[in-house]
Amino acid sequence: MPSVDATRTFADRLDRVRAAMADHGVDVALLSVGADLPWLTGYRAMPLERLTMLVVPADAAATMFVPRLEVPRVVPRGEVFDVVGWDETADPVSLVAAEVGAARTVAIGDQTWARFLVDLLAALPGASWRRASTVLGPLRAVKDEAEVEGLRRAADAVDRIAAELQAGAIPLIGRTEAEVSSDLARRIVAEGHEHTNFAIVAAGSNAASPHHHPSDRVIQVGEVVLCDFGGTYPLDDTGVGYCSDITRCVYTGEPPVEFAELYGVLQHAQSSAVQAATVGTPAADVDAVARGLIDAGGYEGLFIHRLGHGIGVEEHEDPYLVDGNDDPLVAGNAFSIEPGIYVEGRWGARIEDIVVATADGPLSLNRADHGLAVVEA
Amino acid sequence: MPSVDATRTFADRLDRVRAAMADHGVDVALLSVGADLPWLTGYRAMPLERLTMLVVPADAAATMFVPRLEVPRVVPRGEVFDVVGWDETADPVSLVAAEVGAARTVAIGDQTWARFLVDLLAALPGASWRRASTVLGPLRAVKDEAEVEGLRRAADAVDRIAAELQAGAIPLIGRTEAEVSSDLARRIVAEGHEHTNFAIVAAGSNAASPHHHPSDRVIQVGEVVLCDFGGTYPLDDTGVGYCSDITRCVYTGEPPVEFAELYGVLQHAQSSAVQAATVGTPAADVDAVARGLIDAGGYEGLFIHRLGHGIGVEEHEDPYLVDGNDDPLVAGNAFSIEPGIYVEGRWGARIEDIVVATADGPLSLNRADHGLAVVEA
Repeated sequence: MPSVDATRTFADRLDRVRAAMADHGVDVALLSVGADLPWLTGYRAMPLERLTMLVVPADAAATMFVPRLEVPRVVPRGEVFDVVGWDETADPVSLVAAEVGAARTVAIGDQTWARFLVDLLAALPGASWRRASTVLGPLRAVKDEAEVEGLRRAADAVDRIAAELQAGAIPLIGRTEAEVSSDLARRIVAEGHEHTNFAIVAAGSNAASPHHHPSDRVIQVGEVVLCDFGGTYPLDDTGVGYCSDITRCVYTGEPPVEFAELYGVLQHAQSSAVQAATVGTPAADVDAVARGLIDAGGYEGLFIHRLGHGIGVEEHEDPYLVDGNDDPLVAGNAFSIEPGIYVEGRWGARIEDIVVATADGPLSLNRADHGLAVVEA
Repeated sequence: MPSVDATRTFADRLDRVRAAMADHGVDVALLSVGADLPWLTGYRAMPLERLTMLVVPADAAATMFVPRLEVPRVVPRGEVFDVVGWDETADPVSLVAAEVGAARTVAIGDQTWARFLVDLLAALPGASWRRASTVLGPLRAVKDEAEVEGLRRAADAVDRIAAELQAGAIPLIGRTEAEVSSDLARRIVAEGHEHTNFAIVAAGSNAASPHHHPSDRVIQVGEVVLCDFGGTYPLDDTGVGYCSDITRCVYTGEPPVEFAELYGVLQHAQSSAVQAATVGTPAADVDAVARGLIDAGGYEGLFIHRLGHGIGVEEHEDPYLVDGNDDPLVAGNAFSIEPGIYVEGRWGARIEDIVVATADGPLSLNRADHGLAVVEA
């Protein structure tokens, strides 16, 4: 891990946020729960009804309003922001509104709770509102060296779990999807993550549902088991963590030829999309590469979601690799490449890596084997 | 668990929501992430950038807009709402706006992501916005028999863990706060919860910070260890879970007389507040009972947070027991009673139970011993 002076990192990010605010004509940014705040300050707001909000005026010092009893959780970064604790019976929205003052264009953190925005609408009747992601999204989407290293460590950790899965070291047959999901969740933490974010386990026909919720269905001999899992891995110094996200499929016994064919088309589509994810290529074009190969392989219409999402402090962030997003990839973008083929009522498969666009070409952080592993009872 | 017809439960709740909307002059309610949606439909939206939103017009059928690939997660409840899957490249905000139509007063779920409200502000320029909690909060705050049973099961589960803590069966001395927190988190799931929501472990002077984040500080002989933990316990039939939340303190060795005195005052304040939590009593008055006894006991100003919060599908919900909330408690209200005394730089203590206001008086769901347990090395 490159050693970084965390406060300097945050101060530099704040400078870049202010420059982007100027470019977008934003007078003040308001950041609360979600990933913008930890990326900019190292502090993750408690997702509760007591408001935490960082007020970033374009031309004055930033102030973080924090519930008084949560102030001890905040690591002070004097150069970057002031901390103001608000008392249990105070109205934090009026404190924020006073700090915003006469600002006309206000950007608010995408995941801020609507209850606070509803109150701010009343407190700041003249303001016009923007998503803060229009300002911060493009900045967060370009990872620096330390951030890529954080993503790499996270990827290495889930690669080790994927290898165990493929080696048959994680029992599948006879266990429920939910049991395997819990097992994966425990391993994600054991491999060094702060916490597990999700662990999808979908067996047999459940694999046709991309966001399947692990159930009490017992895994049988002779079916596909799709595992899609990730967590947040700590990056020292800043107190901010970076996410992992990987999908691999195994088959409990010899797969039917028909499934092997499907998997072969999918694997080719996935690796081709990784190779296509070069700096300067529009995000939508990378999606189109995988989609075209899947359609041409005889599975038209069965790749029912976008190709991928950016990843960093958050599991899903800019850039999105989806039809309609013509923004070209830039060096430092990190994103998933995860095509899937889903046959309703029968089976499904998905292969996912985290990839970084670099000047030297696409760099896949996940290196676990991409083939269809066969595990025996 | 009383057997319930889940769909009938949800249909009944929807009727009551519509009646409350009429009382509040709300034309349409929009519910997304957060607890309103599962309470009303049994479905918990994925907290991601793809919008899930239930549109409840005052006088027409309710419609849930769901990302197409998440539609298989939704248990259909035909009487209660229709399901519309939106495609990966569609704009869900415009779908919702079309369904809202010319409605003038719109209530939006408190935890909905601000990015969607920002987009809706642009799509519905004539609308006036309210927090959905003004409509749903008072309804959700009155628990029915099955909900109280759900809370009771959750409370029983954490009571068993508290008893183990007090019996010295959970090692403390020589472990870090973070290790004990992980241990508690594991036990919360092992005792039947779906997932752990939090597990605060604060030792020695860290116990003076009510929302302390468990650290690498190693627990020593001769200090207080404050543990505040809870999770979500499944309530069968509806697919909705109910929360636990308990705080107990133990001392690693004989406590000093000064701490025992502090604890005695706290315990008296806590039990007195429980007894004061009768139907018809203003919420603020219950807070005042505990605060008055702590102040009179010589700890004026050291109880630095509100007395408690409602609990149900969510860890924190209406009613809040805090100065300024003069709403009288009603039968079926469930809430925490959790006074604390915090001496900065030295130590702190808190005792917390979940209590239900009933026609027969306050009913404490937590029954783990309230005294200061002494655990030896």
